[in-house]
Amino acid sequence: MEKTDVLVVGGSAAGIIAALTGKSSYPDKSFLLLRQEKQVMVPCGIPYIFGSLDSSDKNVIPDAVLKNAGVDIKIGEADSLDIPNKVCHVSDGSEIGFEKLVLAVGSTPTVPKWLKGAELKNVFTIPKSKEYIDGILDALKDVKKIITIGGGFIGVEMSDEINKRGKDVTIVEILPHILGLVFDDEIAISVEDLLKSRGVKVVSGVGVKEILGDGKVNGVLLSNGEKLEADAVILSMGYRPNVSIAEKAGMKLNELGFIDVDRYMRTENKDIFAAGDCAAKRDFVVGKPTGVMLASIACAEARTAGMNLYKLSSVKSFSGTIAIFATALGDLAFGAAGLTENQAAKEGLDIITGAFTGVDSHPGTLPSAHKQTIKLIAAQESGVILGGEVIGGPSTGELINLIGFAIQNRMTVNSMLTAQVGTHPLLTGSPIFYPLIKAAEAVCCGLKHS
Amino acid sequence: MEKTDVLVVGGSAAGIIAALTGKSSYPDKSFLLLRQEKQVMVPCGIPYIFGSLDSSDKNVIPDAVLKNAGVDIKIGEADSLDIPNKVCHVSDGSEIGFEKLVLAVGSTPTVPKWLKGAELKNVFTIPKSKEYIDGILDALKDVKKIITIGGGFIGVEMSDEINKRGKDVTIVEILPHILGLVFDDEIAISVEDLLKSRGVKVVSGVGVKEILGDGKVNGVLLSNGEKLEADAVILSMGYRPNVSIAEKAGMKLNELGFIDVDRYMRTENKDIFAAGDCAAKRDFVVGKPTGVMLASIACAEARTAGMNLYKLSSVKSFSGTIAIFATALGDLAFGAAGLTENQAAKEGLDIITGAFTGVDSHPGTLPSAHKQTIKLIAAQESGVILGGEVIGGPSTGELINLIGFAIQNRMTVNSMLTAQVGTHPLLTGSPIFYPLIKAAEAVCCGLKHS
Repeated sequence: MEKTDVLVVGGSAAGIIAALTGKSSYPDKSFLLLRQEKQVMVPCGIPYIFGSLDSSDKNVIPDAVLKNAGVDIKIGEADSLDIPNKVCHVSDGSEIGFEKLVLAVGSTPTVPKWLKGAELKNVFTIPKSKEYIDGILDALKDVKKIITIGGGFIGVEMSDEINKRGKDVTIVEILPHILGLVFDDEIAISVEDLLKSRGVKVVSGVGVKEILGDGKVNGVLLSNGEKLEADAVILSMGYRPNVSIAEKAGMKLNELGFIDVDRYMRTENKDIFAAGDCAAKRDFVVGKPTGVMLASIACAEARTAGMNLYKLSSVKSFSGTIAIFATALGDLAFGAAGLTENQAAKEGLDIITGAFTGVDSHPGTLPSAHKQTIKLIAAQESGVILGGEVIGGPSTGELINLIGFAIQNRMTVNSMLTAQVGTHPLLTGSPIFYPLIKAAEAVCCGLKHS
Repeated sequence: MEKTDVLVVGGSAAGIIAALTGKSSYPDKSFLLLRQEKQVMVPCGIPYIFGSLDSSDKNVIPDAVLKNAGVDIKIGEADSLDIPNKVCHVSDGSEIGFEKLVLAVGSTPTVPKWLKGAELKNVFTIPKSKEYIDGILDALKDVKKIITIGGGFIGVEMSDEINKRGKDVTIVEILPHILGLVFDDEIAISVEDLLKSRGVKVVSGVGVKEILGDGKVNGVLLSNGEKLEADAVILSMGYRPNVSIAEKAGMKLNELGFIDVDRYMRTENKDIFAAGDCAAKRDFVVGKPTGVMLASIACAEARTAGMNLYKLSSVKSFSGTIAIFATALGDLAFGAAGLTENQAAKEGLDIITGAFTGVDSHPGTLPSAHKQTIKLIAAQESGVILGGEVIGGPSTGELINLIGFAIQNRMTVNSMLTAQVGTHPLLTGSPIFYPLIKAAEAVCCGLKHS
């Protein structure tokens, strides 16, 4: 039987980071990463294979990253765990003994059981498999009309990229607006309008009843009775955590069906950790389990797991999940961090919001200038910043991280008023109307009058 | 005699923000802003008038900003203050009575007394005067060879912009490298190399002895005896605070010659505030007086002054200056926040540094990807982050603000290891190799082995 000190199961973001961080924290231990895929894709890069990149080969994480760090790789599927004896059974019949185990087994695209027609030819999901993605790429070459079911990040990014290749793309979204779980309406509507202006059709506020076809897909029947023609359908209806191996081994799942972990990413068994899409997450603000899955969160969790494998650190622990996302359509970008106004209201938090629209370079007459809108969501009682949303140019990705840092450090809108930022004509809003501080001012103004 | 509740003297960033924040905090009070300039320029936009913008008219802050907020404007020069009677004497002979006063009188380009030839025709400084800048623009039309003396931000930005118009530009810098006060050598050398590759000549490590000419400038004599030909010379040798009005009124200056203020930006007299380039600054980390002047710092100080005019807020105070800068040459950008390694070493701080080079979008095969290097400077004892430097693409401006927030919140490299960020292929580095977290890892690795 093969033996390793630390076995990491799963080869995507969480697995790679757990192995790398673990090895760098405990260089004397041996690390083995077991994964199904021959080649690992950059997970968030997948939609861009269909437009901006011209092949999945450009979206591969090289194994050298692991090998150079001294992590061994084995290709194979973990079949079951013998926890008392600390052995992992691999589907090829081999066994791996371990001292510590990290489950980073990820998630799988959701296909609802009630959805008829999902098995038809040219109906695809978006898993993290290079072979499968290459298959979609190939199949889409000859089709004209594509329907994307589900207008979350992946559905929106895929649709915009496929549209760049001159296809007729329609997104069907059951919520009133695309990205409706991530953004408040005013931002979601902006994204929707932009997407439409770029040629992607959007049918929102309508569900899907059935996928139509005969062997091969030819259309989609909507919940309002309307039929849309389609040569191919992409299902981006969410993801569910891969927990079958944990379940089989009798490990505890949380109420949302994720592998239960503490703030060190340890499961009930102190030698078994979980990180990434398969691991339980608690919201940073509310403390309740949340189902948000992002590669960036997976990496933060995996770093925590890796550092705490053999020795718990009181400071290197995970204090709750803050969803921080961004995406871009052309040269406009959209981001969100923490709670939206809708989410906060649903949780019963007493909040106040403020927004400001400025520009992302200054003076606004510069050719590189984009409009930049920032909305902040703060606690009414304390002014603590709970969330933020941004529309702007390419700096949106790091700007939403700035708001993410404000949330993580429990900054208040008051502290934001005297916060120091650097500004530069070509790179940021003006020091006088820096939109983040102006949005905080708008919140403060509301606080004073409430 | 004209009377106002609050008199703000100075019309640039600090004056505008002090008036706007003051008026929004105390809407029942009357606000009058007294300034010399008929039209106010965006201060950091000035270098871009010489290249990217084609006229100073595109770099003007409209008066509507103040007028719409209910702030009155008077054009005139404050001549002297009668503090006991709370009266400001204006050079046109008029007087303005006030209850509260904010001095936001800015700074003036430094021309060393020993520098012969500074009075020659076609020798310019870069003040914040539209007429003067228009004069330079006009004069530069017919010249070929331009020498910039001083390779700080303004000298570098001016030179790169002028170079875009096909002029022969040489920067002379007395330090070993341009931007040597702001960046550690490795970053400064990168900027210098890029600037040279764009066609700007750089002579560094050499001082200037004299500006040569006969009525009109024709060259520069260097400290090594070499003579450089020039049809025009731009002096960007720093700025000194405008404190003559404060000095005449007997107000206290600090040891660097700035108007002394407390953390509410109050002078010794509780009814008189100062903010911006003329006001004293204390370094956030070291606590010592610092001479750094930036529009963004000016705005943070002015916001503090405006909020505390009539009622001190224990939380809305200024906790020390963190220099946060960024600049760009083409599509590459450079930023710094807090202390550099050099500065920290000079102050005697026991520090440790770490750096990482990744990309600013991912996979790195994306056409929009730039290399991104981040260096962090942390305290050896505690891991508290004291400074950071960035080279990267257009997201550098907000990324350096992210490091600025880490410094302001006294985050440690340990807390950075479990920090949550959002990542997106088109907008940021990858979640696996997000350069800021990898740089923190590099620091931690050094800490462990030291």
